[in-house]
Amino acid sequence: MTVQVRSAGLIDREAIAAIIMPVIRAGTTYALDQAMSEADALAYWLGADKEIFVAEENGRIVGTYYMRANQQGGGRHVCNCGYMTLAEAAGRGIARRMCEHSLDHARRLGYRAMQFNFVVSTNEAAVRLWQSLGFQIIARLPAAFHHPALGDVDAFVMHRTL
Amino acid sequence: MTVQVRSAGLIDREAIAAIIMPVIRAGTTYALDQAMSEADALAYWLGADKEIFVAEENGRIVGTYYMRANQQGGGRHVCNCGYMTLAEAAGRGIARRMCEHSLDHARRLGYRAMQFNFVVSTNEAAVRLWQSLGFQIIARLPAAFHHPALGDVDAFVMHRTL
Repeated sequence: MTVQVRSAGLIDREAIAAIIMPVIRAGTTYALDQAMSEADALAYWLGADKEIFVAEENGRIVGTYYMRANQQGGGRHVCNCGYMTLAEAAGRGIARRMCEHSLDHARRLGYRAMQFNFVVSTNEAAVRLWQSLGFQIIARLPAAFHHPALGDVDAFVMHRTL
Repeated sequence: MTVQVRSAGLIDREAIAAIIMPVIRAGTTYALDQAMSEADALAYWLGADKEIFVAEENGRIVGTYYMRANQQGGGRHVCNCGYMTLAEAAGRGIARRMCEHSLDHARRLGYRAMQFNFVVSTNEAAVRLWQSLGFQIIARLPAAFHHPALGDVDAFVMHRTL
């Protein structure tokens, strides 16, 4: 199996929507309105402040991530990313491959750290994956996320230097 | 001295610009581009995701703050605020008055917590003020802010329940 990560183009919009809409509708891992329209979701994911990538497995788009500066001005040397994988491609290392790509890309751009602002604590696979890639939990946001099935759960701020 | 806090209107744009532009140009307390235009600064401060207030001291606008949901979807019960005071009105309790107003307003809106995502650690007066109003430092973001005079300094995530 070969996974390639590349910059996204407008031609990838439909494939990106097919990845992000089920994640948003589920409402279990991202703090986004579960009912948001596909147009609004794409406007968010492909926002002008972001650089967008897709992961292709044997030529099929199975993941997408964005990178942006987490703050402006004096805080613009720290980046922020979000990653989503097609549900049926889960467990095959797609998110790991995208995160490794993002760490390399962030270093090339001169970013000095990467911060995830809101990792839902019950998303244990993600928390473990980010930890295995060098991220540390630097804050626990108490009851910051209302999980549709589990109720109020904590969220983490995770961070690593580059 | 009487300080009144009220909702801002479009008529307050000039007074708000007179407060926020020196703070942005100084670049010591907010992670915003020091060189941003006044139009961009107002577009940011008065963004559609925010509710805006002004503080009047004897009828003169000497402070402004915004409130917004810090996250969407499952995270929309936590709000975020930013406060700026006219330099020449500093030390007279304007920021304290605005924060107290925001805590009351947030409770009325049903928010269950307030989070500040990026309090520059060298802004000691602000850190102490927020602590005196019940906020706790729940994360130290290492070297997250490049201070124009002091170089790289930490920033804090501060939080309180409502």
